[in-house]
Amino acid sequence: MTPMPEPNIHAAILGPTGYTGLELIEILSRHPRIRPAYLASARENPPRIDAEFPRLHGVLPGETAQCQPIEHDAIARSCQIAFLCLPHEAAMEHVPQLLARGVKVVDLSAAYRLRDAKTYERFYGHPHTDAPGLATAVYGLPELNRAHIRTARLVANPGCYPTAAALALHPLLRAGLIEPRGIIVNAASGASGAGREAKPHLTIVEAGDNFSAYGIGAHRHQPEIIQTLHLSTSAVGSPGGSRVPPVLFVPHLLPVERGILETIYAVPASPHADTARLTEALTTAYAHERLVVVRKDAPSLRDVQRTNFVHINARVVGGHAVIVAAIDNLLKGASGQAVQNANLMLGLDEYAGLC
Amino acid sequence: MTPMPEPNIHAAILGPTGYTGLELIEILSRHPRIRPAYLASARENPPRIDAEFPRLHGVLPGETAQCQPIEHDAIARSCQIAFLCLPHEAAMEHVPQLLARGVKVVDLSAAYRLRDAKTYERFYGHPHTDAPGLATAVYGLPELNRAHIRTARLVANPGCYPTAAALALHPLLRAGLIEPRGIIVNAASGASGAGREAKPHLTIVEAGDNFSAYGIGAHRHQPEIIQTLHLSTSAVGSPGGSRVPPVLFVPHLLPVERGILETIYAVPASPHADTARLTEALTTAYAHERLVVVRKDAPSLRDVQRTNFVHINARVVGGHAVIVAAIDNLLKGASGQAVQNANLMLGLDEYAGLC
Amino acid sequence: MTPMPEPNIHAAILGPTGYTGLELIEILSRHPRIRPAYLASARENPPRIDAEFPRLHGVLPGETAQCQPIEHDAIARSCQIAFLCLPHEAAMEHVPQLLARGVKVVDLSAAYRLRDAKTYERFYGHPHTDAPGLATAVYGLPELNRAHIRTARLVANPGCYPTAAALALHPLLRAGLIEPRGIIVNAASGASGAGREAKPHLTIVEAGDNFSAYGIGAHRHQPEIIQTLHLSTSAVGSPGGSRVPPVLFVPHLLPVERGILETIYAVPASPHADTARLTEALTTAYAHERLVVVRKDAPSLRDVQRTNFVHINARVVGGHAVIVAAIDNLLKGASGQAVQNANLMLGLDEYAGLC
Amino acid sequence: MTPMPEPNIHAAILGPTGYTGLELIEILSRHPRIRPAYLASARENPPRIDAEFPRLHGVLPGETAQCQPIEHDAIARSCQIAFLCLPHEAAMEHVPQLLARGVKVVDLSAAYRLRDAKTYERFYGHPHTDAPGLATAVYGLPELNRAHIRTARLVANPGCYPTAAALALHPLLRAGLIEPRGIIVNAASGASGAGREAKPHLTIVEAGDNFSAYGIGAHRHQPEIIQTLHLSTSAVGSPGGSRVPPVLFVPHLLPVERGILETIYAVPASPHADTARLTEALTTAYAHERLVVVRKDAPSLRDVQRTNFVHINARVVGGHAVIVAAIDNLLKGASGQAVQNANLMLGLDEYAGLC
Repeated sequence: MTPMPEPNIHAAILGPTGYTGLELIEILSRHPRIRPAYLASARENPPRIDAEFPRLHGVLPGETAQCQPIEHDAIARSCQIAFLCLPHEAAMEHVPQLLARGVKVVDLSAAYRLRDAKTYERFYGHPHTDAPGLATAVYGLPELNRAHIRTARLVANPGCYPTAAALALHPLLRAGLIEPRGIIVNAASGASGAGREAKPHLTIVEAGDNFSAYGIGAHRHQPEIIQTLHLSTSAVGSPGGSRVPPVLFVPHLLPVERGILETIYAVPASPHADTARLTEALTTAYAHERLVVVRKDAPSLRDVQRTNFVHINARVVGGHAVIVAAIDNLLKGASGQAVQNANLMLGLDEYAGLC
Repeated sequence: MTPMPEPNIHAAILGPTGYTGLELIEILSRHPRIRPAYLASARENPPRIDAEFPRLHGVLPGETAQCQPIEHDAIARSCQIAFLCLPHEAAMEHVPQLLARGVKVVDLSAAYRLRDAKTYERFYGHPHTDAPGLATAVYGLPELNRAHIRTARLVANPGCYPTAAALALHPLLRAGLIEPRGIIVNAASGASGAGREAKPHLTIVEAGDNFSAYGIGAHRHQPEIIQTLHLSTSAVGSPGGSRVPPVLFVPHLLPVERGILETIYAVPASPHADTARLTEALTTAYAHERLVVVRKDAPSLRDVQRTNFVHINARVVGGHAVIVAAIDNLLKGASGQAVQNANLMLGLDEYAGLC
Repeated sequence: MTPMPEPNIHAAILGPTGYTGLELIEILSRHPRIRPAYLASARENPPRIDAEFPRLHGVLPGETAQCQPIEHDAIARSCQIAFLCLPHEAAMEHVPQLLARGVKVVDLSAAYRLRDAKTYERFYGHPHTDAPGLATAVYGLPELNRAHIRTARLVANPGCYPTAAALALHPLLRAGLIEPRGIIVNAASGASGAGREAKPHLTIVEAGDNFSAYGIGAHRHQPEIIQTLHLSTSAVGSPGGSRVPPVLFVPHLLPVERGILETIYAVPASPHADTARLTEALTTAYAHERLVVVRKDAPSLRDVQRTNFVHINARVVGGHAVIVAAIDNLLKGASGQAVQNANLMLGLDEYAGLC
Repeated sequence: MTPMPEPNIHAAILGPTGYTGLELIEILSRHPRIRPAYLASARENPPRIDAEFPRLHGVLPGETAQCQPIEHDAIARSCQIAFLCLPHEAAMEHVPQLLARGVKVVDLSAAYRLRDAKTYERFYGHPHTDAPGLATAVYGLPELNRAHIRTARLVANPGCYPTAAALALHPLLRAGLIEPRGIIVNAASGASGAGREAKPHLTIVEAGDNFSAYGIGAHRHQPEIIQTLHLSTSAVGSPGGSRVPPVLFVPHLLPVERGILETIYAVPASPHADTARLTEALTTAYAHERLVVVRKDAPSLRDVQRTNFVHINARVVGGHAVIVAAIDNLLKGASGQAVQNANLMLGLDEYAGLC
């Protein structure tokens, strides 16, 4: 007797008209088990998604291509999981409603990333309005936190910059090869990281052929990077968040659509911490990780664009540890990782739809 | 009793270190039935493909990632089909050897595209050395030629520019809405169409921020476009190739990696040939074509980049028919169409691995 | 006795915070005789120009760098000439005021380009409010209209696309080598042509790596191109505007900052109109023009970017005349030509500050 | 009596077919006193320069546009100064010949930049063959070394990266505000810095939309940067080169034509070294420097592209001093600085032809 094929899982995407929404639709349209079934837009007149993104013509069935209003009951009736690509405040409004109706949530906003509501409020400039949600949210970096994600009902999908920084630094801190203090994360990102809204500095005339540092030491991802460091350093004895040494985070805007390259500077913890040891620590830590590639040479942005991989290279030179890590900000840095988290939450193959 | 799952089909890629090779590997690594099993390089020391293209780290099994020499017997032992991404002359050398060993072939070179060997020799500057192959080759444009492809053992994968031009013009010529004479195909392509070899005019300093016409009225794809027109016009009564009126083909080089946009000018065949009739003819012709999107507005390059779709818009304005067609030159214009052809030749779902 | 050096001429720039304003400032800051003396902004709080464009730090004296309100009397007190980089409606408001105060004007808007107010109103969507100005305005294409510009008090600076089209087509029409009917101007422009305002389709994510046709047969520059053709054809006997045959104008948006390349298709007027004759007609017409380069090969955008030159190549191929012309849309297509006009109006060396 | 106008000075450019040669020709064609009079090419058949760079059509007189062989006597007969844009080894061959004939030389290669021949040989991989030249060469960074340049007969034009680093760091080290040890120069450059030769990693397909670190801690400009630091630190007491602490230099390749942005990390020398003091030190040091702009905000690449300015911003954040400096690599980083040096050597206005 032929076994019944397993039924498909239906997913809602709230906020499908931004770039992370587009990526989610493209991933899920090829996913073996999850169907993008409900596109929920906050716009007064929800558009057809293929009018918004003409490249989606022919990709979704006609009825699905029409965006719907955000209605929690309707979403809960048809979907087991929801991806939220909404502004932070809107996320805090909708997450409790969806969880209450039994819908699992992967939230791509920053609302549930920082454990400490006060830090959140300081960096994001508005109150945190969902303390219960924050208390149960799981930080969705599977390579560092897989077990908790499997059982989570709410996953806070990490920021793009922190994803690359955490994956690059975690094994080296764990192995005690670099000092927790004095870390500089010099990063560069494509412009899709700034979202889809038209802003004067993002036009092709201004941003094309250009390059600039922004938010020097003041970017919202800096406390998130520090929080992920804490996860690492606490494992080697550091007791709590307040003692986590500061990291200097300096992002730059690249004249490209997508991709993040981080060139990270750290202080080797001992004279024994050489290139070979750093490489070995990374290789060992990620021996069974399908999406992490530890390289002997420095990766470039093109190596990871439109993939779900992170490429990492580490070396010691001139007394500094220099780690270069690259991801696609919209995939491993956002929508790809969101699907990886969803796969774990739903008991599916973690990499379904991703490689 | 559970039915045996159908076995995978193994494919060879000859010439995997160019851009069409890379695209084939990426498509086939996600294909449900065809495995990229034999990477055959003409280089003296065949490289690992992930050393050549670091983005392929972790994509292929280790033994497959190592390129092999081009050995016909070894290929025939392990593969049912071969994709040839070789120079035209090399294609004519290897195709007969593979066919003789029972391996089906999709040839991505231009060697078997032009029916007339003399035209081939005039435009490509060297003799055609495989007359038997040319006699049996089938032109691989599935939307116009599907039935013949299904039974073909050798498919000539169309050129990128001719693919877009043929799909844009064919239904309008068939319907008698535009004149066969006076057609101007004004086209623009990303630089990947020029191949992977470093040439002075293709560096980022020279080609970046630049735009230029080249091969004005003299490009190799001009006779191929005319040949596809002939297919269309012969259906409305034109008896033979020698009477096909010339098309003027003017390609331009865009400062982008990929994508082709063709703005085609034609003479409406009658006062009744208006925008509505042109649109209707296209819509009707492609009603059941999954990869062809007929649009009311003009497509842009981004709408089709990294997809297998062709987007077409037609209108009559100021006494001219203006048809805009867009494809990805490496996918619908090369490797994606090659897999579409292979799917047909192997009796698989035509779109497997493509949408 | 040492002759008194000739005094500098002071210029006002109204609307200095757009791209044509920036170019004017950069040109005039190096001009041997004209000083940018009064930057007049319509903003409620006129900014410092080096805050608006940081690349102007150190380029202008401090007091000049501070933009002022648009005050006609103040401008007339300090300036002999004004460059208007304002919206069309605003131009029609300020031009009469400045002329009345004896200030010569080069208007870079479209307000005074079209001779026929009704055509203007149809294409620009608002009434023409300065009939007297329109009656006296001179079309500022020096290579075709130099004598009138010298004595003009108001010059309408041509549109970018029409500048290239007129210079490419004029000598060929005059020489009777191409037919006036059936001309197709297929053009491509960098995004600075769309102005400095942030619009969704102009962000680097949307416009980068992209290419698309827009305003097909409906662009505002189409009637201006037809008007310049009329100048040419009337010279060979065509009596008036109403009989000027239509031109089809199809612009495209390039993923670059600046530059226009036009690929123009025309019908040769006789079998004698071959490549040699077309080239000769252009060479003869422009033998003494310092800014026009007639070439044997097709120009590319980079050949003219950030120069005041126009490069033109013409050929007959496959029964079509194909003319390729390239300019910088912000220089020969806007601010450079504006200074060329100002030089003529002021009796200076026509090319001062330009080469 | 009218004073005789001062005669023009004639310059030779050796190696005019590279990007620094092109920039020199463009600068000198607008220079008030120096004429580009002799283009000397090492190619067997010296080309016309406007065939090599079509944008130079109409820029040079016809006879000058024709490149000549490198003949020392002919150069010395017609030119008072020579700019050398040759490979390092070729520079060492021609410099003594030109100096011996009384021609002043600005050498844009690296041959005479490093004071220590052994360091040169280690980083450049070939012997230094002109010890006498090296002994007399003056390092051509006018803002730090103006007096020596005025009397020099041979000036070593600085590297692009070291120019920005030296101008950013010098005043801060002098003022004792940052520690000489632990400096990290994280830099990014446009691709023109790699020269005009076509290389596989520089094609638009590979380098476009890409970003990567290269030569991490091993680039040839690292010892040159350290040498310029030495100039600074020796002024505050450090006795010699061997004690200069290492600088870590990590360049990246940007997907743009031109421009360098350096984000420099240093250790503040005391708790008093805050943003205000750093800014003040820079402002004071450069109060009378026309080409140096000290800013309160971080500069971007576009602010300096195609200008001769350097923009510098410094701050202290999170315990680090972060200095951002931007230049155009081909102008202040090469040809513009070469003309600045030539102006000084020839007793002209230092900024003639540059602003």
